[in-house]
Amino acid sequence: MSKPLNIGMIGYGFMARAHSNAYSKVNHFFDLDYRPVLKAICARNETQAKAFADRWGYESVETDWRTLIARPDIDAIDICTPNNLHKEIAIAAAKAGKMILCEKPLARNAAEGEEMCQAIEQAGVANTVWYNYRRIPAVSLAKQLIEEGRLGRVFHYRANFLQDWTISSDLPQGGQGLWRLDADAAGSGVTGDLLAHCIDTALWLNGPIAAVTATTETFVKERLHNLTGKVEPVGIDDACAVLARFTNGSLAIFESTRYARGHKALYTFEINGEKASIAWNLHDLHRLQYFDHGDASHIRGWHNIHVSDSDHPYVGNWWVPGLQLGYEHSFVHQVADFLKAVANGKTAGPTFREAQETQKVCDAILASAKSSQWVEIK
Amino acid sequence: MSKPLNIGMIGYGFMARAHSNAYSKVNHFFDLDYRPVLKAICARNETQAKAFADRWGYESVETDWRTLIARPDIDAIDICTPNNLHKEIAIAAAKAGKMILCEKPLARNAAEGEEMCQAIEQAGVANTVWYNYRRIPAVSLAKQLIEEGRLGRVFHYRANFLQDWTISSDLPQGGQGLWRLDADAAGSGVTGDLLAHCIDTALWLNGPIAAVTATTETFVKERLHNLTGKVEPVGIDDACAVLARFTNGSLAIFESTRYARGHKALYTFEINGEKASIAWNLHDLHRLQYFDHGDASHIRGWHNIHVSDSDHPYVGNWWVPGLQLGYEHSFVHQVADFLKAVANGKTAGPTFREAQETQKVCDAILASAKSSQWVEIK
Amino acid sequence: MSKPLNIGMIGYGFMARAHSNAYSKVNHFFDLDYRPVLKAICARNETQAKAFADRWGYESVETDWRTLIARPDIDAIDICTPNNLHKEIAIAAAKAGKMILCEKPLARNAAEGEEMCQAIEQAGVANTVWYNYRRIPAVSLAKQLIEEGRLGRVFHYRANFLQDWTISSDLPQGGQGLWRLDADAAGSGVTGDLLAHCIDTALWLNGPIAAVTATTETFVKERLHNLTGKVEPVGIDDACAVLARFTNGSLAIFESTRYARGHKALYTFEINGEKASIAWNLHDLHRLQYFDHGDASHIRGWHNIHVSDSDHPYVGNWWVPGLQLGYEHSFVHQVADFLKAVANGKTAGPTFREAQETQKVCDAILASAKSSQWVEIK
Amino acid sequence: MSKPLNIGMIGYGFMARAHSNAYSKVNHFFDLDYRPVLKAICARNETQAKAFADRWGYESVETDWRTLIARPDIDAIDICTPNNLHKEIAIAAAKAGKMILCEKPLARNAAEGEEMCQAIEQAGVANTVWYNYRRIPAVSLAKQLIEEGRLGRVFHYRANFLQDWTISSDLPQGGQGLWRLDADAAGSGVTGDLLAHCIDTALWLNGPIAAVTATTETFVKERLHNLTGKVEPVGIDDACAVLARFTNGSLAIFESTRYARGHKALYTFEINGEKASIAWNLHDLHRLQYFDHGDASHIRGWHNIHVSDSDHPYVGNWWVPGLQLGYEHSFVHQVADFLKAVANGKTAGPTFREAQETQKVCDAILASAKSSQWVEIK
Repeated sequence: MSKPLNIGMIGYGFMARAHSNAYSKVNHFFDLDYRPVLKAICARNETQAKAFADRWGYESVETDWRTLIARPDIDAIDICTPNNLHKEIAIAAAKAGKMILCEKPLARNAAEGEEMCQAIEQAGVANTVWYNYRRIPAVSLAKQLIEEGRLGRVFHYRANFLQDWTISSDLPQGGQGLWRLDADAAGSGVTGDLLAHCIDTALWLNGPIAAVTATTETFVKERLHNLTGKVEPVGIDDACAVLARFTNGSLAIFESTRYARGHKALYTFEINGEKASIAWNLHDLHRLQYFDHGDASHIRGWHNIHVSDSDHPYVGNWWVPGLQLGYEHSFVHQVADFLKAVANGKTAGPTFREAQETQKVCDAILASAKSSQWVEIK
Repeated sequence: MSKPLNIGMIGYGFMARAHSNAYSKVNHFFDLDYRPVLKAICARNETQAKAFADRWGYESVETDWRTLIARPDIDAIDICTPNNLHKEIAIAAAKAGKMILCEKPLARNAAEGEEMCQAIEQAGVANTVWYNYRRIPAVSLAKQLIEEGRLGRVFHYRANFLQDWTISSDLPQGGQGLWRLDADAAGSGVTGDLLAHCIDTALWLNGPIAAVTATTETFVKERLHNLTGKVEPVGIDDACAVLARFTNGSLAIFESTRYARGHKALYTFEINGEKASIAWNLHDLHRLQYFDHGDASHIRGWHNIHVSDSDHPYVGNWWVPGLQLGYEHSFVHQVADFLKAVANGKTAGPTFREAQETQKVCDAILASAKSSQWVEIK
Repeated sequence: MSKPLNIGMIGYGFMARAHSNAYSKVNHFFDLDYRPVLKAICARNETQAKAFADRWGYESVETDWRTLIARPDIDAIDICTPNNLHKEIAIAAAKAGKMILCEKPLARNAAEGEEMCQAIEQAGVANTVWYNYRRIPAVSLAKQLIEEGRLGRVFHYRANFLQDWTISSDLPQGGQGLWRLDADAAGSGVTGDLLAHCIDTALWLNGPIAAVTATTETFVKERLHNLTGKVEPVGIDDACAVLARFTNGSLAIFESTRYARGHKALYTFEINGEKASIAWNLHDLHRLQYFDHGDASHIRGWHNIHVSDSDHPYVGNWWVPGLQLGYEHSFVHQVADFLKAVANGKTAGPTFREAQETQKVCDAILASAKSSQWVEIK
Repeated sequence: MSKPLNIGMIGYGFMARAHSNAYSKVNHFFDLDYRPVLKAICARNETQAKAFADRWGYESVETDWRTLIARPDIDAIDICTPNNLHKEIAIAAAKAGKMILCEKPLARNAAEGEEMCQAIEQAGVANTVWYNYRRIPAVSLAKQLIEEGRLGRVFHYRANFLQDWTISSDLPQGGQGLWRLDADAAGSGVTGDLLAHCIDTALWLNGPIAAVTATTETFVKERLHNLTGKVEPVGIDDACAVLARFTNGSLAIFESTRYARGHKALYTFEINGEKASIAWNLHDLHRLQYFDHGDASHIRGWHNIHVSDSDHPYVGNWWVPGLQLGYEHSFVHQVADFLKAVANGKTAGPTFREAQETQKVCDAILASAKSSQWVEIK
C-alpha cells in the first residue's frame, strides 16, 4: 500500500481546485509509493475555507498559514495564494522542513525568487513550481522528440499566449478573482501570468535565453479598483512582445496579451530545426504537429499527431487510444512525477531553481520594456 | 450536506474505471443533493476485484453479482459487464428495487432489451444507459442549437465511428479485454459497439428513424479464440454501412468500422438544415462546427466554436474559459444529471426505453444486412 | 515549334469558359508538340457566340453544330452543351473523324453512352471526357501513392459531393444556366452532375464497383419552369446516397446533394487501406491527407501534405514551392495530357469507354433507388 | 472593343512569367477598356529572351532595356529584373513617359526608392508595384471588413513569412535564379524579399508604423558564389524579427525567414481588434478566419470563410461558388485594377509612393538590427 503524504493547501481559488483535483485522482491512475492526503486547507476567510474543505474532502481547516506550516502532521505545503504571498510562505515552509509545491510564477520578481531558492536549498526540501503545461502529453512528446535528436540545429522558436478577457474597460482591477490585474499582488501583468508559461517551456525545450528586447503596453489605462472603490491607474502590462536569442543560436519571438479577441487561452509554440519542426497549441492540446524533412519528399507534410496513444507520454495510464485528455490532466501528471521523485530522492522539474531562470527572463523582459534596450540574462 | 447514494459496481474493466472516476469527482464540481459512495465492487475474480477496490476506494468486494444485488446497503447497480450479462443482471436488480446504470449497448438485441425495459418499468426504478457522448459539452450544445430552432427543416444527417485497432489478423478474439470480438458476449461487432453511439445521438438530435438498408462485412474471417485456444470463424461484423430515412424526411448515412487506418476513435456527425448546419467529431471533442446561413453573406463560414466558455453546457462547472475538457468528463456530466433526476423524481436520458429505440435500429440494420432489403423500424 | 490543333467549341457556358482558359494557357506552362487553336465557337444564339468569341479570341463563330463539325479546318470538337445533346453531337463528330473532348457526364444514361462509345471506337478518334478532378495535383498524388503500393489491402472507400445552391424553393428549373435542374436536359440530378465525379475518381483509384444499393430524394417537389413559365414537378434527384461494394472487397459509401447547407462545392474522398489511408477534399484541393502506419508509432499522424512542391504531379510546371494552384488548373492538366497522348498515339483517360463505366454505375444507382434493391454492375 | 496597351517586359524569370500570365488572361475574365498586348520582351541573353517570347507570344525581343524604353510603340514597362536594376530602369522609363509596373520591393533601399518616386511623380506616369497579395480575394475581404468598421480599436497585428529553401549550406549564392541570396543584387535578404510583403499588407490594413526594433541573423555565414566561383561571406539576412508600434496604438510583431523547416511559402497575418479579429495565411489563401464578438456568445467562434463566393472581392469574375482560385490570380486582379485606373485617370495601389513607405520601414528594420535600438519611421 502507498504511504500517505499530507497536503496543506493555502488558497481556495482556481488553482487550489486544479491541484486538489490532481491530488484526489492521481492514485486512481498511477502506481505510486505515495498517496496525497487532503489534510488541511487554509484561507483567511473561514467560511470559504470550510466550503472548500467540504467540497474537496479536506480533513481540517486553518485560517492562518503560519499555523498550518507549524502543524507536524503536514508534509507538504501547496501555495495557491496571489503572487505577493509566495515568498513569505515558501521561506517559512522551507524553514519548517516542509515540501513545497508553489503555484507559478515563482514570485513577483527574481529578487524574491532568489530568496526563495536559497531558502529551499538550505532546507533541502522537495520542491516544485506548477508550470503544468510541460506535462500535457503533447508537450512532453515534443520534449521527447527533441531528446531523440530529431530537430538538429534549431533556428527559430516562437511562442505566444493569447487571451481576451480584459478587453472591456468596465472590468475592475484587484480583489477576489481579479488580483491578476493588481500590480502589487501579481508583480506584473501578462508577463508573469502568461508569458512565464511560454518561457518555462522554452527553457525546457530549447535551453537558456541569452538576451531579450521587449515592449509592453497597457491598453486600458485606468480601472475601478475593487479594494479602494476608486478608479485608479492600471499598474500591470496588458500585453508584452519580445525578441530573444537563445544561447544555442536560435532566434525567438514571444508574445502575451489579454487583448487578442477570439482567443480564450491560446498558448502556442513552434520550433524550427534543420531536420524537423514541431508546433503545438493549448486550444487543441491533445495534438502535436510534427514536420520531418526525412520523410520521402512527395509525402512530406506536417504529421498531425493525435497524442492519445498508449505509447505517448502519460497517456497509457488513462483510457484507450483515441480518447482525449484535457487541461486538468497536466496537474495529475505533475503530482505523479513529484511523488515519484520524492520516493526516489530525486527532483521533479521545474524546481524553484529552474523556475527562477524563468523569473530572471521575465525580469529582463520588463527591464527591457522600460529601457528600450536589449538586456542580457545572467 | 449531500445524501449518500451507494453504488454497487459490477465489472472492473475500462468502463468500470470511467464510471468510478465520474462517481469520485462529480461532487467536486457539481452542487448536488446526492453523493455517490463507492460501496462495493463485484467481479468473479476476487484478486482483480480487490485490486480495483484498493485503487478506487470501494469499501467492499463481492464475487457474485446476485449477492451484491441482495445487499440492502446498495442503492444503485452499475452494470459494466460484457453485453451478454446485461439482461440477467438488470432484471434481477430491477426486481430488487435498485436503480440501474447500464453500460451501452442496452443488450445484445432488442428482444433482450425489451425484457429489460419491462422489468425496470414494472419496478419503477431510476435507470440510465451510458451513451455518454450526449453529454460532451459540444454535443449538448448541438442539441441546444437544434432546440433553439436554428436548423429549420433538416435535409441530411451523416455519422460514422471509425477505429483501426482490429486490422491485424494476429489479434485474438474473446476473453478478457477482447470480448468485443466475440459474437456471443457482444451480440454484434461494430454495430452494437460503435454504431449504437451514432444512433443514440441521432435519435436524440433528429428524432426517430423510419427505415434502413445496410450492409456489413467481416474482413478477417477467422481468428484465434482466447477461450478455446483454437482458430475459429469470426462471428461479429467488422464494418457496417447504412442508409436511413428519418421520420422528419431527412436522409441519413451511418458507418462504423474497426478497419479505418489512421482513426483511433473518430466518431463524427454532421446535420444539414435549411438554415444552418452542425458538425462535430470525437477527436476534437471540444469543438463544434456551426454554419449559419443567417450570417451576412460575405462573412458566412463555419463557426469553429471552442466549446470551453462558461455559458456552454456543463463547462461553467469546471475551469476558466479556453481550457479543454476531455473524454472522461462526459461520464461526470451523466452522473450529475442522473443524480439531479433522482433528486427531482425525474428521468435522465437515455433511459432504458430510449436506449431500446437504438437497439431496435441496430437490430433492423443487422437484419437488413442479412436480407439485403430495406427494413422499417417499428 | 508546336503544331496547331484546331478546336471547335460547342457551348458558351461555365464549362466552355473553363476549357477555353485551359486551351489558352496550356502551352505557356507545358512543352507540347501540339498547340490548341481557338478556331471556332458554336452556339445557337449568335450574339452570345460572338461575345464569347470576342472575349476568348475564337477566330470564327457558328450557330449550327453540324456546320461546325463539317468544317475541315476543325480537328477537335469540344462538347459543352447540356447533357441531352452529347450523344447526337459526339456521334456526328466521330463520324466526321474529329477528336472529341466531351464534358461530363458522358451522357444522360448508359444507353446513350454505349452508342457514343461504339461511335468513337468505330471512328478510332482520340477522345476524352472532362472528369477534371483526376488531374488536381493532390488527386493525382493519391493515385501515385496507391500505385506505389502504399495502401495494401483496401477496406473502405467513402466519398461525397456536397453543395447547397438549390435549397431555396424560389429557384426555377430549366433554361439558361439552370438546365441542371431539368431532368430532360440533364438526365438526372445530383447523380449525374456530382456523384459521377465521385464515381469516376473511385473507379480510377480503387477499381471496378460490383454492386450498389441507393436511395434518392427530391426535397423541393415542384418549381417554376423557366421554359414553360409554369410551376411543374421537379424530375431530378436532389440528393443521392449509396452503399457499394468494390470488386476488390472494399466497402463504400457515396453521397451527393445540393442541400448541404454550408458547403458550396465540397467533394471529399477517403480511402482506408491496411497500411495507409488517404483523404482529400475539393475545398482545400491543394492538400492531401496521408496516414502511414509505417511511421514510428509515436510520430504517427496524418501527413498534411501541401501539394505545391516541384516533385508533386504537374506542380513543377507552374510557380515555386508553396504557392497554390486552383480549380482551373485541373483543366489545363487534362489538355496537356490529351495533347501528349495525341502526339504519342496513346489515350488520355478518362476515355469515353472509361466514362461509360461511371455511367453504368450511375444508372445502377438510379435503378436501385427506384427498386430499393441491390443492383449489380455488369 | 478594348484598346491595346502595349507591354514591354524586362526580365524572363519567375515574376516575368507570373505577370505575362496575368496580361494574357485578364480580359477573358474582366470587362476592361484596355487590353494588354505582349509587345516586347527584353533580356540580355537573346536566346532566353526568344524562348520566352515564343512561349508567351511576345511579338518582339530586345536585349537592351534602353532600346526597349526608347520604342514609341511601348506604353508600359514591366520591371522584373533583380532589385539592383529597378532604379535605373524606372527612372529612365519615367523620363520616357512610360507607365511602369515594377516588381517588389520597389528598390534596394529607401534612398533609391525616393529617387524613383520623384522621377515618376515628375513624369506623371501611371505606376504600380507588384505587392500582389493585397489582391488575393481573402486579403481584399480583410480590407473590406476593416473598412466596414468591424474591428473597432486595434490592439495587435502579427505577421510572418516563413520559408525553408535555403537551409542547406550547399546552396550557392548569386547568379541566375539565386540573385536573392546576393546582397548586391537584392539589397537585403528576407527583409526586402519576404518581410516587405508583410509590411505592405500591414500598412494597407492598419495604417502607418511609428517605430520598430529588430534583429536579423545569417545562419549560414558563407556560401559558394556562383558568379565568382569562390566561397564567400553571405551578405544577406537569413532571418529577421521585429517589434513594432503602429501610429494607431497597436502593437505588432513581424518575422521573416528562409529557415523555417516545413513551411514553403507561409505568409500569415492576424489582426486583433476590440470587436473582431481577422487571420489569414498564404498556404490556404482561399480562406479567411474571422471572429466576431458580436455573435451570440454560445455560437461565437472563428468563421472559417471559404472565400469563393460570388460576392467576395474579384471572385464573381471567375467560376462558380466553392471553387478555389490560386496564387496566380492575385496578379490578374492587379492588372485588372491597374487597367481600370488607367482608364479612369486614377491610381491603383500600391503606387511607387506607397511602396516607398514599405521601403522606409524595411530600412528602419535593418538599421535597428545594426544599432540594437528602436528606430522611428519618419
